[in-house]
Amino acid sequence: MTVHVAVVGASVASEDQAAVAHRVGSELSQAGAIVITGGGGGVMAAASQGAREAGGRVVGILPGMDRRAANPWVEIALATGLGELRNGLIVRSADVVIAVGGAYGTLSEIALALAAGTPVIGLKTWTIEGIELAASPAAAVVRALELARRLDA
Amino acid sequence: MTVHVAVVGASVASEDQAAVAHRVGSELSQAGAIVITGGGGGVMAAASQGAREAGGRVVGILPGMDRRAANPWVEIALATGLGELRNGLIVRSADVVIAVGGAYGTLSEIALALAAGTPVIGLKTWTIEGIELAASPAAAVVRALELARRLDA
Amino acid sequence: MTVHVAVVGASVASEDQAAVAHRVGSELSQAGAIVITGGGGGVMAAASQGAREAGGRVVGILPGMDRRAANPWVEIALATGLGELRNGLIVRSADVVIAVGGAYGTLSEIALALAAGTPVIGLKTWTIEGIELAASPAAAVVRALELARRLDA
Amino acid sequence: MTVHVAVVGASVASEDQAAVAHRVGSELSQAGAIVITGGGGGVMAAASQGAREAGGRVVGILPGMDRRAANPWVEIALATGLGELRNGLIVRSADVVIAVGGAYGTLSEIALALAAGTPVIGLKTWTIEGIELAASPAAAVVRALELARRLDA
Repeated sequence: MTVHVAVVGASVASEDQAAVAHRVGSELSQAGAIVITGGGGGVMAAASQGAREAGGRVVGILPGMDRRAANPWVEIALATGLGELRNGLIVRSADVVIAVGGAYGTLSEIALALAAGTPVIGLKTWTIEGIELAASPAAAVVRALELARRLDA
Repeated sequence: MTVHVAVVGASVASEDQAAVAHRVGSELSQAGAIVITGGGGGVMAAASQGAREAGGRVVGILPGMDRRAANPWVEIALATGLGELRNGLIVRSADVVIAVGGAYGTLSEIALALAAGTPVIGLKTWTIEGIELAASPAAAVVRALELARRLDA
Repeated sequence: MTVHVAVVGASVASEDQAAVAHRVGSELSQAGAIVITGGGGGVMAAASQGAREAGGRVVGILPGMDRRAANPWVEIALATGLGELRNGLIVRSADVVIAVGGAYGTLSEIALALAAGTPVIGLKTWTIEGIELAASPAAAVVRALELARRLDA
Repeated sequence: MTVHVAVVGASVASEDQAAVAHRVGSELSQAGAIVITGGGGGVMAAASQGAREAGGRVVGILPGMDRRAANPWVEIALATGLGELRNGLIVRSADVVIAVGGAYGTLSEIALALAAGTPVIGLKTWTIEGIELAASPAAAVVRALELARRLDA
């Protein structure tokens, strides 16, 4: 089955974080992975844009009830109405999580992933034991795909 | 934004129900709609197969934690781990719900949709006030798209 | 463990439905059962009032994020922020469900209970195969406790 | 409305953590607060025991579908079937969260609370900006009640 990778991070991103997230999304799409985000702005929008521009599948799992609140690069927008609890669904839908920067919502995604045994790769994000740090977007994607394939074997 | 239509029904389907669901999935895909199901067998599998064979997007929102439990025609499989509560997410992600046959799980989807004001089109399903009955799979799809567009206007 | 019984019904109740729900709550409390409702008005408020006035435990599982929206007879108010999806949690927390009247939300609770194999006792509610009808509030409570004990054995 | 305080921590606790959690539960009950935990072992069981022995209300919001899996000091056991996602419901039901020690599940509760603006008081737990550290169980409870009353004002 196609690899599903979640890209998580805050809804407000610095220029640097947005560039990193865009590159992560782009590389994931080129590798054929499905990109899952929370469907919002900031890191989520940048990763979605990168993935969509590269021709990939982009899923947004939204906190609210209105699908139309998704960023414009989301192709499949799921409105959950669960608020911040949708973070857990993003994590459960992914083989691997890549975290870029991030606020408390991102921390909850990291924690829920690690609690479930789902690997988390970090790019300038929270310092939490269990996160595997990556040196660049490209390195993060290579490692994510490696881990996903291992899980599938 | 692309129309999202949920096709709901039981995980065990009669030959007739499966044929109806397959046709519904196929017509939806040909019209460019994204098809959302619970990702399981029976009506869900038949609708997924119909949609996928017609080249469309097929999303499965699964009850368990394992994406690999999805039927083989699901392209994007979201493992929720919510059990039967994922029914509510299927409904919330859809502009319109098409119900084919169905057991209690389907009834919960119909009820949650009607409670939220989401239109439900029925093909040989529960008799509940508020469901709009359709005479054929093709008629159900035509009506679903009409209702979805009206919501979007 | 103490028996947990959910009393479900619409947030707007007729005088007759409210009287029935009040009596159900009262009888459940007198029998030592914990009463669980959705914490809102109508049937939920009447059942809560009946239970609380009889000195029992009353839990409200609310759709919104604000505990203060609970009706005044709820003792333990849980704010879920899940909207209508909290219906599933009410059902999962109960050994038996008693339905009084009701709109689509109540129908979803009935369907989710029956899908999970949780007995549903009905008092002038939806006509759905699988609901056990009761002739009076007292009879509904006697039967609910009988079923709950059987499950526990 | 009665103050609701969540006590969160791992399902396996050191002797020291269990003693701290027991004391927190006991003090909360004596102050009239309702104690909410995840209903499991370790910190959850110790806090529940402390609260129950002091005559208080103890709610357990369980990950599984079986209420009977609750620790023996839980009075009101809610089976959610949401797995680790029930962490979010514990947090949403509380005015204040007290964290004792903890693994990744506890970290997710801390993060979800801080994301929602719910105060978190820590006793030898994760070092995360935004947690207010307490010097003792008694100090944690005093501060929790102070914060809860402020929210209510």
